[in-house]
Amino acid sequence: MITSKDNNKIKELVKLYKNKKYRDEKSLFIVEGYNLIDEAIKASRLVSIYSIKEEEKYKDAIIISEELLSKITNTITPEGIIAVVKKENSSKIGNKILYLDRLQDPGNIGTLLRSSIAFNFDTVILDECADIYNPKVVRSSEGAIFHLNFIKESLPNLKNKGYYLIGTTLNGDSVNTLNYNLCKKLVLILGNEGNGIRKEYQDITDINLTIPMNKIESLNVGVAGSIFMYLLK
Amino acid sequence: MITSKDNNKIKELVKLYKNKKYRDEKSLFIVEGYNLIDEAIKASRLVSIYSIKEEEKYKDAIIISEELLSKITNTITPEGIIAVVKKENSSKIGNKILYLDRLQDPGNIGTLLRSSIAFNFDTVILDECADIYNPKVVRSSEGAIFHLNFIKESLPNLKNKGYYLIGTTLNGDSVNTLNYNLCKKLVLILGNEGNGIRKEYQDITDINLTIPMNKIESLNVGVAGSIFMYLLK
Repeated sequence: MITSKDNNKIKELVKLYKNKKYRDEKSLFIVEGYNLIDEAIKASRLVSIYSIKEEEKYKDAIIISEELLSKITNTITPEGIIAVVKKENSSKIGNKILYLDRLQDPGNIGTLLRSSIAFNFDTVILDECADIYNPKVVRSSEGAIFHLNFIKESLPNLKNKGYYLIGTTLNGDSVNTLNYNLCKKLVLILGNEGNGIRKEYQDITDINLTIPMNKIESLNVGVAGSIFMYLLK
Repeated sequence: MITSKDNNKIKELVKLYKNKKYRDEKSLFIVEGYNLIDEAIKASRLVSIYSIKEEEKYKDAIIISEELLSKITNTITPEGIIAVVKKENSSKIGNKILYLDRLQDPGNIGTLLRSSIAFNFDTVILDECADIYNPKVVRSSEGAIFHLNFIKESLPNLKNKGYYLIGTTLNGDSVNTLNYNLCKKLVLILGNEGNGIRKEYQDITDINLTIPMNKIESLNVGVAGSIFMYLLK
């Protein structure tokens, strides 16, 4: 059993937890709990498992003390098990793309990834967002991260490839007016929590849409984005 | 300027922050930041303001040290200002009621309160849920808490009063099949994050609905509830 925080494996875990640069460099990230570990195994992306007790199911799990685990994760991991997992870069591009412009809240991003799977958006583009391999995003995405294609592509290029670009703003056309026949290949663009989609993106979209609503200024972006994806599914 | 945590006012603030029982007993709670304080003033429910600096706008604000404020709130309050606010019990009952059965995550409850305002659900019933006057709920509801009627009423009573009871489950009828003409007076019931709506409630609803979706087992309850409210608005 590893109990020292000076152990090299533990130092590596801490860096993978806290440091985006290190995750990028190693192309690795960490997942917590049985469900996500099983998803990683199914996707052939598991590297190593760390558990606070012997596990029938995962014979190769490295045993570490509970105290050490809670120091690494800086949170409660109720199942006492985490794993190091390989990132995967995809070049597959689907017909329904979710484009996130500068989203910063890990919980919002995780929620949107989870909803995108539910509503058949299988490709995601992250433009200056919080890192999706941040443990909070991984947690709130509930495994969606293993089922999505994360690609890099610009909006003008997508337009040239025949995608219909849908912006979301507070003062656009009502989503009720949308002609769904135009949406066989589409990009849904969601913007930053405080500032929305940047102006230069709003100018090149085919349409900018708003969810009709009462009183308050705006919905949570995770909610608004999920309603748009539900309607466009 | 108050700097000591042994000051009686500060002790009171700490209890209001951390202790549901105390909030219930005093019928008070705490809000953070200018927006929520202005909402409280508009609603004539402000009791007192605590700020880390003199405020032109709020002459009666009590000044406390920044260190003390961060100890009280146990988080970052970027604007350095909080207020004690009166709770209000309402007996007003609207036509669209949101019924939350044992929801435990403060962020989910806050999101749902925010969405309920957007989609004209003006009455909320909390059945064994996390406390809505928990600072995390207040924060994520973004002021919705000042615009909703929180009532106590049982589902059988609501049914007797002519409300159409809509349960939400993972294996109900598709929401696409809903006859909206039946929904002039309705109760939308959302269930606990892990376990859904309790069985005895599912048995007395008029209909149990599901959002059609791909692959994953379920959406985040804040998202699912918001989509239902959007469709029923």
